[in-house]
Order: sequence, then structure tokens, then C-alpha cells
Amino acid sequence: MIFERDNNTQPPKRPLFLVSNDDGYRAKGVHELTRMLSRLGHVVAVCPEDAQSAKSMALTVKRPLRIRKVTEYHDSEPDVEWYAVDGTPVDCVKLAMYTVMRDRRPDMVCTGINHGSNAAVNVVYSGTMGAAFEGTACGFPSVGFSLCDHNPEADFSFMMPFVEETVLKVLSEGLPEGVCLNLNAPKSSELKGLRYCRAARGRWTDEYEEMQPPFGPPVYWLTGRFITDEPDAEDTDEWLLAHGYVTVVPTLLDRTAPNF
Amino acid sequence: MIFERDNNTQPPKRPLFLVSNDDGYRAKGVHELTRMLSRLGHVVAVCPEDAQSAKSMALTVKRPLRIRKVTEYHDSEPDVEWYAVDGTPVDCVKLAMYTVMRDRRPDMVCTGINHGSNAAVNVVYSGTMGAAFEGTACGFPSVGFSLCDHNPEADFSFMMPFVEETVLKVLSEGLPEGVCLNLNAPKSSELKGLRYCRAARGRWTDEYEEMQPPFGPPVYWLTGRFITDEPDAEDTDEWLLAHGYVTVVPTLLDRTAPNF
Repeated sequence: MIFERDNNTQPPKRPLFLVSNDDGYRAKGVHELTRMLSRLGHVVAVCPEDAQSAKSMALTVKRPLRIRKVTEYHDSEPDVEWYAVDGTPVDCVKLAMYTVMRDRRPDMVCTGINHGSNAAVNVVYSGTMGAAFEGTACGFPSVGFSLCDHNPEADFSFMMPFVEETVLKVLSEGLPEGVCLNLNAPKSSELKGLRYCRAARGRWTDEYEEMQPPFGPPVYWLTGRFITDEPDAEDTDEWLLAHGYVTVVPTLLDRTAPNF
Repeated sequence: MIFERDNNTQPPKRPLFLVSNDDGYRAKGVHELTRMLSRLGHVVAVCPEDAQSAKSMALTVKRPLRIRKVTEYHDSEPDVEWYAVDGTPVDCVKLAMYTVMRDRRPDMVCTGINHGSNAAVNVVYSGTMGAAFEGTACGFPSVGFSLCDHNPEADFSFMMPFVEETVLKVLSEGLPEGVCLNLNAPKSSELKGLRYCRAARGRWTDEYEEMQPPFGPPVYWLTGRFITDEPDAEDTDEWLLAHGYVTVVPTLLDRTAPNF
């Protein structure tokens, strides 16, 4: 079972959330998340200065990092402390633990809400999930949230009840050590419910667009299409998302293959 | 069992290897690897222009990539084609598949040899292992190799028989779909043998050095110490490395938690 505690356990009265993302502190998705969480408890958001998509669990090692307090949301989000870091999503979580969270431990780490799917194999490239895995590495219950819509003005409202439900469930029941959750919601106003499932197997194809710059040899810009290897497998995130469900895939930080 | 094929299967007569790393195409470790592999078959090495340590599975999405032929090793390594990419280790593998490997598929993807350990939780941050995971994502048997020594002039000679043994074993027996190998060797001239094992649980601590720049607020440079949570567990990579063994951890690309 994913959840550890007895269902009767009460969540912390006023939980402390650490929030990060990979789209940067200005992205709509993270503010949807912080506004919802600040109704439940206190929120410290430590996000990249700029978009850091597809940074996986990359760390900045060649230069030092800066963290600064962001003041522009004081009025609109009075219960959220905002910070920006000139690094990757994992840098944000690690540096938060070392600086602004040093003397207070979060009850939960929430990342996203990502503008774009992190279902199937995307989980391994995702900066949003990288930050969630780092929360898990630091020993805290962690969940990454994503909406399958890259639009900067995407409508997150339909998924928010499922985000809140999942946060409350994790706060009250905990997560096993080393497991974090990867929640994805389809771009749909008619969501059918939430399902725990596994990541679909599949692959990206046609991954580059060849371009001819004004001078020199061609260059290659990442693009591509994801193809699932198991389009009819109803227990996968890809199938469930395509059929209107919010999906939650329990994911492991440890990558050791079992039973070798 | 890790290996799939019958032991009597012969490896390809003249296998084609795709090689990448995260220390950049000039690093000593990757040339140790290409020289050894070129005795077994043909080698195409597609490596980052510069050091890309701790890039995990990060992708470059905000700008196009350049790939160029490197000619400086024509004389010293006549059986190796060298290319450099201005991106991450995963970019190198993906772009190789789309360009220089487009009409020929590798029998095996080998990454490293990394200057530094990728044991325990380091596997999730490692660019070397990121490239190996990408090889697995592309459907090829893949192994990442690392030496627990950051010295740019490190002595790789003692580990090379174990590297070769592992390459030959994977060529002849294959690997299960979705599994790649993470081989680490201790910095020692007296290696006791090779062991298949699991990644030790543990964590990094004291992760930043606070520095005062000439002006402005303090900055934070990543450093830290790794502490294993299970120092006496003899079936872990950390224990075995500390006791003179070369370790191989079978690792999964898929991160779905089993039995949820």
C-alpha cells in the first residue's frame, strides 16, 4: 500500500509546505498551487528564476547559487514566502533546505503545477519531478503535479480538487520512505476521477528539427512525439489520461532493479 | 536474472559501440573506454564539448544543438569516430541516434568512464548514468562506468579488465528491457573482484559552502559529504566499494513503484 498511516490520523494542524517547480517563479501553475496550499497551511516557495524545463535532477556544480526573496506577491499571496534561485529545480529544493528551511522542516514538498505532461517516460526528464524526487531524497513526503497543457495561460481549475485531495491524503497518511507521487491531469473540463496507476511504456520519436542557421552547418532543435508502446493498457497513465482521468503514479527514488 | 541470452550465444563479430560521457570529449576516462572498446569493435563517441557533471537526464530545450566531428584523435585512435555536442550527456545520445547513428544501430551504449563515484544515490544526479539511461530508453543494452577518483589524471588501468569483462558479458547475453548497469570501481590497485549488488541508501549532508562575493549577499556553492544509512550492509555498492570490490548495480529506467 502506498499510504502508511492509519486513516484516522489527523494531518498537522497548520502544515508547512515547501513548493518548487521548473517553469520558474512567475509561472501560472505554481501560483495556482501556492494559493491552494496557503489555505491549508504556511507555504515557502523556492523556485527557479527562469524556466528550467527538462532539467531532470541536474545540479549546478560549476558556479555558486544565489537565492533572493521575491516581494512582488506580498499582497496577492500574504501566506506565501517567495524565493527565487538562479539554478535548477533540484538546486532550489537543496538550497531551500540549507537556507530558508534550515530551522523548520516541511510537512510536505509539492512541486509544479507543471505546464505540460510528466506522464510515462517524461518523469525521468522532468524538472518538476526532479524537485519532487529531491524532496523524497531529503526525507519528506513529496508530490509533483502536472497538467497536460503547455499553454502559459492554461486553466488549472478543474484539477485543483484532485490536487487538494491528494495533498490532504499525503498529509494524513504519509508516504513510504523513498516513494513520491507523480500526479498528472488531462486538459479537460470533464474529469472522471483519480486513479493510481503505472507509467506507460513508450518512446519519443522524430526528436529533432534540423535547421539551417545563417552560416555554418545545420543545428538540431529538440521536438518530437511520444508514442506509447501499450496503447490499450488500461492500467497506465497514458491510457487513463486519454480517457479523462487524473493519474497518480507512485515513483521510486532508488533505481536498483528488483530481483536481479 | 540480469542476463537474458543463453551463455552459448556468441557476441556480434565486430560490435558497434556508441560511447558518451559527462566529463566532455577531452576527459581521460572516456579515452580509456574508447581505446579498450576499439579493440573489440567499431566505436562512435559522441560526447559533450565541455564538462557536464551532475546533469542527470537533463535535456536542452531552449536552443538548438550543434554536433561537430572531432579530428584530433585520428592518429591515436584510428578506430574511433569522435563527435562533440554543445549539450548534456542525454542530448549527446539522443542527437547521435538522430544524426551520426541514424542508419546504423549500436550493439551497445557505453558511458564514462566517469571521474568520480556514481554509487548509491549519486546514480540519480549523474550525467554518465543519464546517458546510459537514455541508451536504455532508446532500446539498447547500456552500461555506465565510473571510477571513484575525481583526479583528471586518475589511473584507470586496474579497473579495465572488469570493464571489458562486463562489456563482453552484455554483448553475449544482453540485458532485460528497461535495465541498464551502473558499474563503479574503487580507487585501488588491489581490486578483489566484481560483485552485482544494490545501491546503498544514504544522503548528502553539509551540501553548500557559503561564500561572500565582493559585493551583494552571500552565495552558495555545492559541496557536501555522502553518508550511507547502512554502513554495515554487505550487499550494497558503498560497502563493497569500501572493501575493494568493483560493483555493478542493475538499474531501472522505469520509476513506477512496484506493488502499490
